[in-house]
Amino acid sequence: MCRWLAYSGSPVLLEELLLKPKHSLIDQSLHSTMGAETTNGDGFGIGWYGVGDTPGTFHSIEPAWNERNLRDLAQHVRAEVVFAHIRASSGSPVQQTNCHPFRHGRWLWMHNGLIRDFHEIKRDLVLEVDPSLYPAIEGSTDSEVFFFLALTLGLEDDPPAAVEHAVGLIESIGRRRGVEHPIQMTVATTDGQSVWAFRYSSEGSSRSLFYSTRVDTLRAQHPEVAVLHEVSDESRLVVSEPLGDLAGAWNEVPESSYGVIREGRDELRPFTPRPPG
Amino acid sequence: MCRWLAYSGSPVLLEELLLKPKHSLIDQSLHSTMGAETTNGDGFGIGWYGVGDTPGTFHSIEPAWNERNLRDLAQHVRAEVVFAHIRASSGSPVQQTNCHPFRHGRWLWMHNGLIRDFHEIKRDLVLEVDPSLYPAIEGSTDSEVFFFLALTLGLEDDPPAAVEHAVGLIESIGRRRGVEHPIQMTVATTDGQSVWAFRYSSEGSSRSLFYSTRVDTLRAQHPEVAVLHEVSDESRLVVSEPLGDLAGAWNEVPESSYGVIREGRDELRPFTPRPPG
Amino acid sequence: MCRWLAYSGSPVLLEELLLKPKHSLIDQSLHSTMGAETTNGDGFGIGWYGVGDTPGTFHSIEPAWNERNLRDLAQHVRAEVVFAHIRASSGSPVQQTNCHPFRHGRWLWMHNGLIRDFHEIKRDLVLEVDPSLYPAIEGSTDSEVFFFLALTLGLEDDPPAAVEHAVGLIESIGRRRGVEHPIQMTVATTDGQSVWAFRYSSEGSSRSLFYSTRVDTLRAQHPEVAVLHEVSDESRLVVSEPLGDLAGAWNEVPESSYGVIREGRDELRPFTPRPPG
Amino acid sequence: MCRWLAYSGSPVLLEELLLKPKHSLIDQSLHSTMGAETTNGDGFGIGWYGVGDTPGTFHSIEPAWNERNLRDLAQHVRAEVVFAHIRASSGSPVQQTNCHPFRHGRWLWMHNGLIRDFHEIKRDLVLEVDPSLYPAIEGSTDSEVFFFLALTLGLEDDPPAAVEHAVGLIESIGRRRGVEHPIQMTVATTDGQSVWAFRYSSEGSSRSLFYSTRVDTLRAQHPEVAVLHEVSDESRLVVSEPLGDLAGAWNEVPESSYGVIREGRDELRPFTPRPPG
Repeated sequence: MCRWLAYSGSPVLLEELLLKPKHSLIDQSLHSTMGAETTNGDGFGIGWYGVGDTPGTFHSIEPAWNERNLRDLAQHVRAEVVFAHIRASSGSPVQQTNCHPFRHGRWLWMHNGLIRDFHEIKRDLVLEVDPSLYPAIEGSTDSEVFFFLALTLGLEDDPPAAVEHAVGLIESIGRRRGVEHPIQMTVATTDGQSVWAFRYSSEGSSRSLFYSTRVDTLRAQHPEVAVLHEVSDESRLVVSEPLGDLAGAWNEVPESSYGVIREGRDELRPFTPRPPG
Repeated sequence: MCRWLAYSGSPVLLEELLLKPKHSLIDQSLHSTMGAETTNGDGFGIGWYGVGDTPGTFHSIEPAWNERNLRDLAQHVRAEVVFAHIRASSGSPVQQTNCHPFRHGRWLWMHNGLIRDFHEIKRDLVLEVDPSLYPAIEGSTDSEVFFFLALTLGLEDDPPAAVEHAVGLIESIGRRRGVEHPIQMTVATTDGQSVWAFRYSSEGSSRSLFYSTRVDTLRAQHPEVAVLHEVSDESRLVVSEPLGDLAGAWNEVPESSYGVIREGRDELRPFTPRPPG
Repeated sequence: MCRWLAYSGSPVLLEELLLKPKHSLIDQSLHSTMGAETTNGDGFGIGWYGVGDTPGTFHSIEPAWNERNLRDLAQHVRAEVVFAHIRASSGSPVQQTNCHPFRHGRWLWMHNGLIRDFHEIKRDLVLEVDPSLYPAIEGSTDSEVFFFLALTLGLEDDPPAAVEHAVGLIESIGRRRGVEHPIQMTVATTDGQSVWAFRYSSEGSSRSLFYSTRVDTLRAQHPEVAVLHEVSDESRLVVSEPLGDLAGAWNEVPESSYGVIREGRDELRPFTPRPPG
Repeated sequence: MCRWLAYSGSPVLLEELLLKPKHSLIDQSLHSTMGAETTNGDGFGIGWYGVGDTPGTFHSIEPAWNERNLRDLAQHVRAEVVFAHIRASSGSPVQQTNCHPFRHGRWLWMHNGLIRDFHEIKRDLVLEVDPSLYPAIEGSTDSEVFFFLALTLGLEDDPPAAVEHAVGLIESIGRRRGVEHPIQMTVATTDGQSVWAFRYSSEGSSRSLFYSTRVDTLRAQHPEVAVLHEVSDESRLVVSEPLGDLAGAWNEVPESSYGVIREGRDELRPFTPRPPG
């Protein structure tokens, strides 16, 4: 029950993504205009690929809008792939191990939404996590268990298939326990090369999700906007809620679909949960 | 730029004041309906008189709405005089030493509002604090400096006069520096026996402040409300924003005035800043 | 891998237990002289019985030695049964949900020591927790899983038997996985009436544990010590490490044994793990 | 009352400085073997020059030894000039605004030691800070006031002279108030190009300070140590306490002296406080 942003493109200073835009994600932490919650003050996290083999992450339990370290890091870290997430807890404690993005090896994962009646079905879900992965679960959120189910079901090999299998499993277990609409989600995941973004909910009424228009198209429409001449054609943002106020900049991800952003190729495809066989 | 609550009366479990009422102060930390900010998530504090010679205090930099220790304390502390404050920072850092209520000896102090252009006039104000009190300033807020000015000017002997002198001094120094409306305030202070609550602003348009109707009057109007039979006639609340939904329960403190709540006698009087002679 | 203190007796201000004694528990957080770690700075917690149906608790991730709220609470809370714990993490994150004492209903639990190779056997242990209790596990420590195993095995009905069964189960599962000495422990648990304190380790070389001499005995030996005339004969402390410097005040709990402290009766008995049947 | 490290040289991953060496600064936060305190658990901070016009900083109130964000940042940030500081508070609150290194524009500052009887002379010292700089003081430590005195007295133009003037002023004010030995210090400051490191105390018995031997000398003595072939001849460390265990690697900064580290030239000079004229 949160908001998030995923960026892939030319190297960018984090503050250009997180602080400077009108209706920036940090603004949204205090005053979101779309979405189920207007305040997302239960901690936040960022992840980025740059120095080192794994992505860097920074998690804090303080609200993003007044967090001094976040502001400082955003002014001093530049990256080509960036994830950022602001949290509104749906019940689990506000602690760093419950802050997104979650990391496993080179992978990051973040989620807006919830697994309904998670307390009732948590044990059944956790039992489905590969025993060798189980000890790496650090926090207590539905979102992290969802990540570990996707890892168990092949996220690192075929992300869309793994997420479809994980959602199918969650829906199957939830319905067996009498939960009508077990999952509500927008999810982003990345290995630092490609970014996958999913929009789905069991009830067919998912949280909002937008992707940015191709930079070359925007540049042709708005030749006077300087920043558009600085970033590559491939640069893309996926967000819970539009940033800035550039006409034509944002496109809604359709219900029950997912997008892939990678060099030289973007795709938008239908998303269909796959129940266990 | 905050919300607060002051209680004086029969011993009460803190959660009855802070958590259980509709539109409770904890609710207001996430969704305030009146006032300049809708979110007050930059820390909070409580103060109470009970065991020990001085009031107990608890301060946290986390938002009140999801703070586990606050919830726990509220269920396990009972007191006759209670102060509670939720903060929306107007610029100074979110740290425990900036959380209200501030304490000096047996006195507590909390403030909603601000000293305008505080950064510009802070040095002049701090120079007016008694040098023997100066080392006891722990944080960096306008509200704490205001408290120490009031202490310097006799708060412990005559609270209304001391606050009138402090406000006169702040207005005098602010205007000398070109600040048109130097102060905006509702303030509560107590020595554990009496509670004083002030409503004033240089521009004559102060933040809201309400005091509760006498319990015997409410009891006559609402004989069916059980809790009214449990608390003494003297029990009173002063709040930034009404709690609960009992008709006739709340009265607005008039512009430029202050109230005193003490055993056997309540008063409402005009408040007039006294500039330095 | 921690230090703890359990008190049962006349109502006492928490600071008398936690702050004022020489070598107090707060001192030990910075400079412990016994035990495997000299610094216990990975958070702390207190629990007490007083107002309300359940015990109050306060947990913090900051070191106890400089925690302002702890100092303040200790000066303003009085109780007849008090638990306090300072933590030196053996690997799990420093977060409030990993701070002892853990609470379930009216019960508190705290642990010094560890379950060895916990990461390897955590899943097997968690599977033994009653599914109806499972969702109440909030943190990620070995100590909390141990508590939930004891609850599953009847802690609320027969604490010594439940702990013997839980330790038998942990040893059995650990050894099946090749862990030579699966558990090292001193544990305290209470329902607010009686306190049980256990000392045991698979290797037969347990962390230190001491209980205080009866107050009437101490009073006869040290008639000049004023505080001994203020507390009841029944007042008792159980601690990881002696406090103060009163000769004859402390007695070591023998290896593989447990004590019960309750009104009118203290006992010391052998502790024998009971493997699953 | 702390420990610190300053690095200048070839770009280095922060973990190579902070985590990997034997007796690393992070190790010292838990178990220092030299110095007045063995535990430095009252928060920490790092500063580095890289992306952006100003140095990046990260401050935390948690002990460095178990801080997850520090560990993560250290693995994902590379820099040519790095400051790191672990704190043992001598009284002022543990809060981010009291964590070193302090920053002003392009300058960083960190201090091990104290201004004695700071509470008594704080007001006099603060009055000497340039009124235009005064509002930028954010915390409540002696070390930050010391930094602002040095800034007032010309740190950005002539660091050694400014520090000599600031120490002269502190000694003069302290002695006027009857403090025999007003200051104890090792200090490091940098503009991102040069690093200045000072060792001095009024009593002539200063905290320890070491600088690393030239890399070309070490390389000749220890041709088998691979890392010495990777860093430039100019790379230097200044530390409170030696790291690692390479024979001949460390040299003590003499009492009452300071060093300058900059490209192509290192210097060691006497330090003489300059009292106000």
